[in-house]
Amino acid sequence: MTYCVGLLVKDGLVMLADTRTNAGVDNISTYRKLQIFGNDGERLVAVATAGSLSTTQAALEQAAHGFLAPDTGEMESIHTAPTIHRAAWLIGQAVRQARTAMEGLTQGSDINFDATLLVGGSIGGEPTRLFLVYGAGNFIECGPDTPYLQIGETKYGKPILDRALTFDTDVYEAVKIGLISFSSTMRSNLAVGLPIDLLIARSGQATAELVHRIDETDPYYHDLNERWSTALRAAQASIPQPPYRAGAI
Amino acid sequence: MTYCVGLLVKDGLVMLADTRTNAGVDNISTYRKLQIFGNDGERLVAVATAGSLSTTQAALEQAAHGFLAPDTGEMESIHTAPTIHRAAWLIGQAVRQARTAMEGLTQGSDINFDATLLVGGSIGGEPTRLFLVYGAGNFIECGPDTPYLQIGETKYGKPILDRALTFDTDVYEAVKIGLISFSSTMRSNLAVGLPIDLLIARSGQATAELVHRIDETDPYYHDLNERWSTALRAAQASIPQPPYRAGAI
Repeated sequence: MTYCVGLLVKDGLVMLADTRTNAGVDNISTYRKLQIFGNDGERLVAVATAGSLSTTQAALEQAAHGFLAPDTGEMESIHTAPTIHRAAWLIGQAVRQARTAMEGLTQGSDINFDATLLVGGSIGGEPTRLFLVYGAGNFIECGPDTPYLQIGETKYGKPILDRALTFDTDVYEAVKIGLISFSSTMRSNLAVGLPIDLLIARSGQATAELVHRIDETDPYYHDLNERWSTALRAAQASIPQPPYRAGAI
Repeated sequence: MTYCVGLLVKDGLVMLADTRTNAGVDNISTYRKLQIFGNDGERLVAVATAGSLSTTQAALEQAAHGFLAPDTGEMESIHTAPTIHRAAWLIGQAVRQARTAMEGLTQGSDINFDATLLVGGSIGGEPTRLFLVYGAGNFIECGPDTPYLQIGETKYGKPILDRALTFDTDVYEAVKIGLISFSSTMRSNLAVGLPIDLLIARSGQATAELVHRIDETDPYYHDLNERWSTALRAAQASIPQPPYRAGAI
């Protein structure tokens, strides 16, 4: 499993991705799922991946190397895309091709090669944008009404995002909310695990403000986890007990 | 969609079920999903249902009316079962038969007739037990290590159960935790909605201590919802901001 979330607030983009992969519960490994291209002041393309690792690795290899874009017939890649929207489109095409190729190689089996990706960033000074790319190559864009997108094991960590995050939330507050969302997810699903990769980019910037890995020894994450557990127990304790007594429906 | 949870703590059983059903988002109705049989001091069989309403309604009709049990060849029903375990088994068989019959009627379509059920209660003074019955008729029992079972839209409401509930939790505290779990679920999935049906039964008792419906006008649930939201925001605010600053993975 996997959990990745992208938070696009007024002042910037936060992307968080866990690193646990599993083929069954008896085969668990650590793989980077947050890939960063460019990050050179001109081009920042951050990609978080969920689903078949063979699909997403093959697709990103091809999207980075370049391929003949089906609509223009030109050689294009993440490194030549003029906008982050075009980069998301190219990545979607590469995912679609990789998935189709693998399904062809394994016809008759029921191996699942589906994948979803988050693509965020900014190219050439444009406003930072964030997209969720599906395995068929189509994609949707994150907007201010719901300023986040999730892939993978999304449900455990969604309630805190829905309650706490708005488009006006500060970037570092958004990081904190994202990490609380991870904390809830990792409490309930062992297939999502540390380390967590983190990227922060200010809006319109093509150089990340921060690229950081949060591992098992990270004191802040440990403290956040403890404080959140304690606060939830206190919140629960502060609510009066139900007044319901004998009656009938 | 549906969300139902059964909490089996040392002192008793709590069952909570929402009442929203939907066939697509444009066809939403209210149906009781918590059915109570007996409740007469001798026999208490409480059943919460998720999945195909035509399957669960047909199965409960048959399990209440009685049918030839495939293993004994005798006419048996929820009202004759000597134990809650046998009642769960009979309900499982009835679900399996109902599901198979409906799949036969609609062959070639991709309508999903699967269903899952929670069956809890006590017959003839035995200790209260709680089971999760699958659509194939097999079932599992709730134990003290994880003193709850969920069906339907389970993920949004699972983190609070994992963090707050133990086998030693007081019955009314368990009701409160169950309602917080509903609050999180209903915040994130519109297909789960009020009213919520609630049953409380003390362990070994075959008469419910409380059967109650929590509707939109319920001041306690409204207050719980508000307090929980406020407490989550306060908990989030009380956690310091991340210390991470420029570096590299």
